Amino acid sequence: MKKKLENIQIAYIGGGSKEWARVFMGDLALAGDISGTIRLFDIDIEEAKKNAIIGAKLSNSEIAISKWEYNVYDNIEEALLKVDFVIISILPGTFEEMRSDVHTPEKYGIYQPVGDSVGPGGVLRALRTVPIYEDFAKAIEKYCPKAWVFNLTNPMSLCVKTLYDIFPKIKAFGCCHEVFNAQKFLLSVVNIINKIDNIKRQDIYTNVMGINHFTWINEARYKKINILDSLREFIKEYYYKGYNADGETDAFLTNPNKYGNRVKMDLFKKYGVLAAAGDRHLVEFLPSNWYLKDKDMVKEWMFSLTTVDFRINKQNNKIKDTKLMIEGKIPCIPKKSREEVVDMMKALLGLSKIVTNVNLPNYGQIEGLKKGGIVETNAIFSNDCVKPIMSGELPSGVCNLITREFLNQESLYRAIKNRNLKDVFNVFINEALCDKISIEESKKLFIKMIENTKSYLHDYYDLSTLDDF
Amino acid sequence: MKKKLENIQIAYIGGGSKEWARVFMGDLALAGDISGTIRLFDIDIEEAKKNAIIGAKLSNSEIAISKWEYNVYDNIEEALLKVDFVIISILPGTFEEMRSDVHTPEKYGIYQPVGDSVGPGGVLRALRTVPIYEDFAKAIEKYCPKAWVFNLTNPMSLCVKTLYDIFPKIKAFGCCHEVFNAQKFLLSVVNIINKIDNIKRQDIYTNVMGINHFTWINEARYKKINILDSLREFIKEYYYKGYNADGETDAFLTNPNKYGNRVKMDLFKKYGVLAAAGDRHLVEFLPSNWYLKDKDMVKEWMFSLTTVDFRINKQNNKIKDTKLMIEGKIPCIPKKSREEVVDMMKALLGLSKIVTNVNLPNYGQIEGLKKGGIVETNAIFSNDCVKPIMSGELPSGVCNLITREFLNQESLYRAIKNRNLKDVFNVFINEALCDKISIEESKKLFIKMIENTKSYLHDYYDLSTLDDF
Amino acid sequence: MKKKLENIQIAYIGGGSKEWARVFMGDLALAGDISGTIRLFDIDIEEAKKNAIIGAKLSNSEIAISKWEYNVYDNIEEALLKVDFVIISILPGTFEEMRSDVHTPEKYGIYQPVGDSVGPGGVLRALRTVPIYEDFAKAIEKYCPKAWVFNLTNPMSLCVKTLYDIFPKIKAFGCCHEVFNAQKFLLSVVNIINKIDNIKRQDIYTNVMGINHFTWINEARYKKINILDSLREFIKEYYYKGYNADGETDAFLTNPNKYGNRVKMDLFKKYGVLAAAGDRHLVEFLPSNWYLKDKDMVKEWMFSLTTVDFRINKQNNKIKDTKLMIEGKIPCIPKKSREEVVDMMKALLGLSKIVTNVNLPNYGQIEGLKKGGIVETNAIFSNDCVKPIMSGELPSGVCNLITREFLNQESLYRAIKNRNLKDVFNVFINEALCDKISIEESKKLFIKMIENTKSYLHDYYDLSTLDDF
Amino acid sequence: MKKKLENIQIAYIGGGSKEWARVFMGDLALAGDISGTIRLFDIDIEEAKKNAIIGAKLSNSEIAISKWEYNVYDNIEEALLKVDFVIISILPGTFEEMRSDVHTPEKYGIYQPVGDSVGPGGVLRALRTVPIYEDFAKAIEKYCPKAWVFNLTNPMSLCVKTLYDIFPKIKAFGCCHEVFNAQKFLLSVVNIINKIDNIKRQDIYTNVMGINHFTWINEARYKKINILDSLREFIKEYYYKGYNADGETDAFLTNPNKYGNRVKMDLFKKYGVLAAAGDRHLVEFLPSNWYLKDKDMVKEWMFSLTTVDFRINKQNNKIKDTKLMIEGKIPCIPKKSREEVVDMMKALLGLSKIVTNVNLPNYGQIEGLKKGGIVETNAIFSNDCVKPIMSGELPSGVCNLITREFLNQESLYRAIKNRNLKDVFNVFINEALCDKISIEESKKLFIKMIENTKSYLHDYYDLSTLDDF
Repeated sequence: MKKKLENIQIAYIGGGSKEWARVFMGDLALAGDISGTIRLFDIDIEEAKKNAIIGAKLSNSEIAISKWEYNVYDNIEEALLKVDFVIISILPGTFEEMRSDVHTPEKYGIYQPVGDSVGPGGVLRALRTVPIYEDFAKAIEKYCPKAWVFNLTNPMSLCVKTLYDIFPKIKAFGCCHEVFNAQKFLLSVVNIINKIDNIKRQDIYTNVMGINHFTWINEARYKKINILDSLREFIKEYYYKGYNADGETDAFLTNPNKYGNRVKMDLFKKYGVLAAAGDRHLVEFLPSNWYLKDKDMVKEWMFSLTTVDFRINKQNNKIKDTKLMIEGKIPCIPKKSREEVVDMMKALLGLSKIVTNVNLPNYGQIEGLKKGGIVETNAIFSNDCVKPIMSGELPSGVCNLITREFLNQESLYRAIKNRNLKDVFNVFINEALCDKISIEESKKLFIKMIENTKSYLHDYYDLSTLDDF
Repeated sequence: MKKKLENIQIAYIGGGSKEWARVFMGDLALAGDISGTIRLFDIDIEEAKKNAIIGAKLSNSEIAISKWEYNVYDNIEEALLKVDFVIISILPGTFEEMRSDVHTPEKYGIYQPVGDSVGPGGVLRALRTVPIYEDFAKAIEKYCPKAWVFNLTNPMSLCVKTLYDIFPKIKAFGCCHEVFNAQKFLLSVVNIINKIDNIKRQDIYTNVMGINHFTWINEARYKKINILDSLREFIKEYYYKGYNADGETDAFLTNPNKYGNRVKMDLFKKYGVLAAAGDRHLVEFLPSNWYLKDKDMVKEWMFSLTTVDFRINKQNNKIKDTKLMIEGKIPCIPKKSREEVVDMMKALLGLSKIVTNVNLPNYGQIEGLKKGGIVETNAIFSNDCVKPIMSGELPSGVCNLITREFLNQESLYRAIKNRNLKDVFNVFINEALCDKISIEESKKLFIKMIENTKSYLHDYYDLSTLDDF
Repeated sequence: MKKKLENIQIAYIGGGSKEWARVFMGDLALAGDISGTIRLFDIDIEEAKKNAIIGAKLSNSEIAISKWEYNVYDNIEEALLKVDFVIISILPGTFEEMRSDVHTPEKYGIYQPVGDSVGPGGVLRALRTVPIYEDFAKAIEKYCPKAWVFNLTNPMSLCVKTLYDIFPKIKAFGCCHEVFNAQKFLLSVVNIINKIDNIKRQDIYTNVMGINHFTWINEARYKKINILDSLREFIKEYYYKGYNADGETDAFLTNPNKYGNRVKMDLFKKYGVLAAAGDRHLVEFLPSNWYLKDKDMVKEWMFSLTTVDFRINKQNNKIKDTKLMIEGKIPCIPKKSREEVVDMMKALLGLSKIVTNVNLPNYGQIEGLKKGGIVETNAIFSNDCVKPIMSGELPSGVCNLITREFLNQESLYRAIKNRNLKDVFNVFINEALCDKISIEESKKLFIKMIENTKSYLHDYYDLSTLDDF
Repeated sequence: MKKKLENIQIAYIGGGSKEWARVFMGDLALAGDISGTIRLFDIDIEEAKKNAIIGAKLSNSEIAISKWEYNVYDNIEEALLKVDFVIISILPGTFEEMRSDVHTPEKYGIYQPVGDSVGPGGVLRALRTVPIYEDFAKAIEKYCPKAWVFNLTNPMSLCVKTLYDIFPKIKAFGCCHEVFNAQKFLLSVVNIINKIDNIKRQDIYTNVMGINHFTWINEARYKKINILDSLREFIKEYYYKGYNADGETDAFLTNPNKYGNRVKMDLFKKYGVLAAAGDRHLVEFLPSNWYLKDKDMVKEWMFSLTTVDFRINKQNNKIKDTKLMIEGKIPCIPKKSREEVVDMMKALLGLSKIVTNVNLPNYGQIEGLKKGGIVETNAIFSNDCVKPIMSGELPSGVCNLITREFLNQESLYRAIKNRNLKDVFNVFINEALCDKISIEESKKLFIKMIENTKSYLHDYYDLSTLDDF
C-alpha cells in the first residue's frame, strides 16, 4: 500500500490550463502523504509543456513536501492508460465561440453574466461539449475503467450526465467551488451577527441540494446556532447596501467576479433558503425580468456581466506570467488553495474522510427530482468510494424553479445525444432567459449562434430540421 | 335495486346556473333507465327556483322518457343529506371579480383569453374558490360521504385538490369537455385525410394525459389508422390557413369561442403530440411571448381574447330566454347534449361502462408527475367506481411545460390552504404569463387584483406579508 | 380496413395443442366480423396437421359464421412473418419432465397440486421455458415486431418477463382464466345470498391485483351490492362444508380439477380479500404447513393433487377423440367458449372494447410492487392498445405473501438469464413450499430434479456451481 | 456556546439498567469536552438510585476528566423537561415474560437464540413494547421536542417506528452495536489474509444496509483492499472449523454470547455479501429448517440458544457487584467502551463528525424497501443533525429475505397500533421461524404466549378476534 501511495498516476485532460491546473499543481506539492506522476494532455500541447515546466518548479520548491513528476502526452489514450485519477478541465472551443455564446443574445436583450451553464450560451456550449465527453467516456472505459474521474468543466451537469450515460460504471463526479462562496458568506453572517471569529468553512454544517450553479442551502448550523436565523438579522442591515466579504460593495463595478450578494439575499427573503452559488450564476436560472431586464437592473442588484474581453485580458496576463515563471522571473512557490481536489484524492485513497458537495446522478439523495438526472448534494468520500448523503425534499418554494432547469437539462442531453437539433431548440426556447423574445426571434438568434460556432459543431447538425418553427 | 334506480337523489350546487344546469336537466329527461329528484341549491335562490320550473317543464316534455322532480333548498346541508350524487358548478364571485381577473393584467401587457385556470386570473380565482371548496368538502364528509361528486367548476385542478385534501375518502372527480373538442378535431382529420365518414368521437381511441386545460394526446387511433400520422398530412394543408370544424376560419373574429386550431397545430409540429384543449386555454400555460405577446399576435394565431363584457352579454340573453321559457313563450324541449355527466352516473350505478377523461389525484396513472397532484387522464367508470387508466410517461418534449404549471398548482394550493399570501405571490410571479413583467410590476398588479376582489377574500389576507418583495 | 379484417393473420405457436387450440378454433369459427388465416406451428408437426384438419372442419361447420384457413408451417420464421397476432401455448418438455416437476418433491414431503408456476416444479419448469421464450422474443422482434402476442403458457410470469426483457417494445401480455373462476364463485354468492339470478360474469365489477395464480380481488360489486359483504354471510354457511358451483362438494375426490373453495374462504376470513385463482394454485404460494402438510390436510381442505398420470390419461382420451374427429366419427361443431382470446383480438382490431385481467410488466398499476416485474390486473383493450387500469395498493395483509413470490420470480428470471444455477437454487430454497426441508435436503432434491430433466437443460448448467451449499 | 457544553442535560429512561447505563456513565466520565447532568428515571427507582451512586463514583474517579451530576427522578415528565438528549434503554416486562417469549415456542420445536426482535418472541415483545413507546413519544413531544433521542431497546425497528409515527418531527434514531462485531470480524480477515496489523474498526469502510439484526455489508475496503475478496480466501480455511476472534471456537458451548461465525460464512457463500449481526440474530430471520431445525443443527453451526436462566444468572452476578460497588468493595473506575453513544452526542453538539450505522425511517437511503419503514444504514452525525448516507440497492440475493421481515414489521406495527390482535396473528404465522408448524398449532402457541404475558397486555386484547382461524 505504501508503495502505491508513492506512485499515484494522474491524467490531466486540459493540462495546458492556466488556472485550475496551476492551483492543482500547487496543492499537490503540499499534499504530504502521496506522490507520483501527472500526465498532462492538451490539444494545445505547447501549453501542456509549459505547465510541465511550472509543475516541476512547484514540486522542486523548497517548501514542497511531495514529489511529483510531470509528463506531457500527445495522445489521450496513453495519458489515460491505467491511471488512478483523471482530471478533466477543458475549454470547449475558443474565446471566439464563448464570445458568441455570451454576447450574441445581448442583441435580443438577453444578458448573461456567465453564459456557460444555462440560457442560450449554456445550450450552445453544451452542443460543443457533450460530443467531446462522449469520447472521453469511451476512452476512460477502455483505458482506465477503475480510475476516479474529477470533472471541473462547464456545463457541469451535462458533462457528468454524458460520462455516466456512455459508461454507466464510471467512477466520476463533478466538483464546483461555488458552494464554498456561499459558505464563506455564512461565515461572515456568523461573524457579524453572532460575533464569533476564527471559524472556518469546515466548522459549519450546511445541507446542500439542487443542481450545479443553482444549489440551495436549507440548513446551516454552527454548533447549535441556526445560521439561517442569523441571516434573517443580517439581511435587515445589508439588503439594500449589499455585502461582499472584501468590504467594498462596489467592487463589482470594476471586477465582474465580485458581487454584492443582493440577489442571494433577495431570494432568501422570498423563499427562506439560501441559494448557494454566485449571484452571477443564479440570475441565469430565473425569468429574465427578475434580475436581468436591462443593464440598469443588473447594476442595481450589484453584480456584473462578465465580458469575454475581460476574460481574454485576464488570460493574456496569465500568458505573460507563464513566460515569466518559465524564465524564472516570477518564482514558482506552491500555496495551499481552498480547492479540495487533492483532499478528495486522499480520501479516495483511504487516507482520510471528507464530506463535500458534488455533482452525481440522482439515486434518491434528492427527493422530488427524477432519478438519473445530475444533482448536487453533499457526499462522503472515503476508501475508494463516494456516497451521496440524503439531502431530503426540495423546499417547495424553489422546487419548481430547480425542476424547470433540471428537466431542460435532461431534455437537452437527450436531444444532443440524438443529434436532434429541433429538440435542442425546443429546450432553447424553454430556457428561463429566453422568455423575453418570441419564438421567431429565438429561431433567428439560435441559427446565428449555431453559425457562429459551426466549426465546432460537426456537419451532422442540419438546420433544416428547424423548418417546423 | 330497481327501486333505487327510480329514486336517485342528486344535489346540484350552483343550481341556478343558466348553462350547465339546463344542459344537464335536458340530458336527465332523456336518460331512460334512471329517475329521481334533483335538489337545487344556489346562493341566489331565485335563480334556482327558475331552474326548478324549467327542469319540471323539461321532465314533462312529451319526448322526455325519465321523470325527475325538482326541489329548491335554501341550505346546503339539507340539499346534500344522503344524496347519491353531487354536482358542483359555481361561479366564485361575480362578473366584476372576473373582470378584474381577466382585464387588470392587460394594463401590464398580459393578455388572457380565458383567465380562469392559470395565469394572474387563475391565481386570483383560486384565492376565492379554494376556501369555498374547503366548506363543500367538509359538508360532503358530514352529510353524504358516499355520494359521487362531479366537479364542473374552474380552476378545476385546485377544486379537485381541495376536495381530496380536506376529505381524503371523497369519491370525487373533475369533468371537463375540452378534450372532446380535440377529439372532434381528430374526427375532421380522419375525415379529410383518410376519407372516412360517419364515425363519432367514441369510435376513436385517444390516450389522454396532463393537467386540466393542458392535456395532451400522444396516441390516437381509429381501428389501425394512426391518426397522428394523418394529422401530419393535415397540417401541411391547414397550418397557415387554420381550421375549424364549422368551416369559417375567421369565425374567431366575432365569436371568441371559436378558434382556428393554429396553436394546436403549431405545438404538434414542435412536440409531435396533440394538445387536447382549446387554443384559448393552451396559450395561457406558455411563455407570454409565444402566442400572447400582443393583440396582433393573437389575431395571427386565430383565436381571441374573450372579454367579460361578451360574457355578460351572453348571460343577459340567457336571462331573457329564461323569462320566456318560464312564461312558456320558448318551449322547453330536452335534447341530448354531448356532455357525459348522465352517462357517467349510469355507469356508476352499474348500468353500463364508460371510458372518458377525468381529473383525479395522481396515483401513478401519469409517470413523471408527483403523486397526489391533480392530473387528467382516461378512467373507466363502472359499478360504483372510477379507476384511472395508466397513461404512461409524459412525452419528454412537453413534460417540462406541464410540470411547471403542475408544480405551481401544488404550491398554490398549499399557500392558500395556509392562507400564506406571500407564497401565493411566489406562485404568481412564476406563472408563465407573468414572465413579461418585473417582480416590482408583478407586485403592483397583484395588489391591485387583490384589492379589486377583496370582498371575496376575507380579512385574513394580510398584504403586509408582501413587504419582503 | 374492411379488407384487412378479412385477412387477419394469426400464428399459433404450439399449434398441435389438443386443448387450447381447439377451443380457440371453435371461437374463431363463431367470431363473426373477422376472418383470415391461422398458421399452425409445432415442434410436433403431425399434431399441427391434425389440428389443421379439425380447424378446417370447424370453419366449414354449418353454424360457423367466419371463414378461416389453416396452414401448417415447419419453421417458426415463416409462421411469424408479418402476422397480426401470435398465440403461444406450448408444453415445455414432455409429461416425463412434468412428472419429475410434480412428483419428485413428494419424496421429501412436498406436495404440489399443479407444480407448473411456483414451488420446486415451477422453478424447474422455468428453467426449461425461459430459454425457449428468449428465442421466441428474438424471432418476434425480427419477423413480426408489431404483432400482438398472447401468451397462454405457464409459468406465466416468467414467460411474459422473458418476452419483455428480450424485446422491450413487444406488444405482449399473458392471459389466464383462473380469475374467471373466482368471478363465477362470486356469482354464486350473489345468487345465494342476494337472491339475484341470471347475471353473468361481465355484469359484476371486480378489482383484480397480484401475480398470476395468486391474484386477489379487493372490490367486487354488482350494481350497488358489495359482494364481499355478501361473501362474509356466505362463508358462515359454507366454510366447513365447502362449495363448488356444480353442487357436489366431494367432486374433488375423483376429479382433481374440482375443489371446494375452502382455502379461498379461509384466506378471506384471514385477510378480508378474495384470492382469485383455484385453490390448487393458491396453496402453492403459501408456507407448506398451512394447507399442504400432508395428504390428509389436503383432503380436509377439499382439493386434490393432480397427478401426471391423470393428465396423461386425459391426454390419451383426447388423442382418441382427435382420431375420431379426423375420421369424421365425432362431429366438429364450434361452440362459444368462455375464453376471451377472440374477444381481445376484436378489441385490438378496433371493433369493440373489453376490460379483463392480464399479465403485464408493472408500470405502476400496482402500488407496492417494483416496476418492471410481471403483475396481473385489469386492463382495457381497444384500438391497437392494451392499457392497464390502476388497481391501487396491495391490501396490507396479503402484500407480504405476494411480494415474497414476486421477488422470487424477479430473482429467478435474472438467475436463468445469466445461466447462474447457484442463484436459481437460492430461489429454490426460498420458495414457500421448500420451507419444509433443510438446505441439504433441498440440494439433493434440486440436483435430482435437474438430472431428471437434463435433456431439456442444455449443457451450460454446471452442477459444480452448487458446491457452495 | 461553551457554557452550554458545560451544562448538557441527559434523561436516561431505564436508568436502573445494570449494563448499558454503566457503560455509558463510564464513557461520559472520560468524554473530555462536555459535562452536565444525567437524570435517571426507572420504574424501579431503587435501581436508579444505585446507579446514581455508582455514576457519581465514576465521575469522581481520579482518571475521570468530565464532571457529571446524577439525579434520580420519580416521574418521567420532570426527567424529560427541556433536556438535550434522551436515552431509552428499557426491559419491557420481566424475565418471566422473556421466559415465555423465548421458551414457550420450543415446545413446538421452534428454537430462538435470542427471541427479542423477530419470530414468536419478537412479536410478543413488540406487543408489550409499542404501547410504552407510544407514551414515550407523546411525552417527548410535550416536554423536550428538540431533544435527540437514542433508542437502545429491542425490538429496535418497532421502537423507532413507534416514536416517528406518533411524533413525526422527533429527532430519534436507534443504535445497535451488532454491526461492530461484523466489522471486528472483517479486521480479523484483513489481519489473517492480508497480514495487516494494528488497524481498527474505524479504519475500514463498510457499506451497511438492511434492517436491524439483519443488516448486510456489500462493500468493505481497507485502503484499496477489497475485504470481501479476502473473506472468500478466509472462508476456505475457516468454513468448517469456525472462527471467533478469541480463538476458542468452542466457546459457544459454554458462553451463549460466543459463536463461530459459521452461519455468517455460509450466508456469504450463498449470497456474496456479509450479514452484519451476530449469528444468533441472523438465524431468526430465516426459514427454521436452515439453521434451527433442532439442537443438533444449532450445535453444528456453532452458536447457542441463550436461555433466560443464563440471563438471570448473569443479572444476579451484576446485582452482587452493584452492592459491592456501592459499598466500595469493588472500585468504580471508568473505562472507554467500544460504544459510540457519547461520540454521537459530541458530534450532534457540533464538536466533531462521526459516520456510523443507525436505524431510521427509510427516506430513500435504501433502494428497494418502502419509504417510511425502519432501516439500518450508515449516517453522518454533525452539528445538530443526522443524515443517512445512500446505501444503494439491496443485493438481489438477500433482498427477498430482508423484505419479508421488513414487511412483517410494517404490518405488525399497524396491527398493534390498531390493537388488532387478529392482524398481529397474521404476522405471527408469516414469521420465518413459524413455518415449522400448522396454523392450528400456531394459534395454540400464540394464545399460550398471550396468556403467559397478559399482565403486560392490557385488557383491550380480545382473544375472540382469533376465532376466524
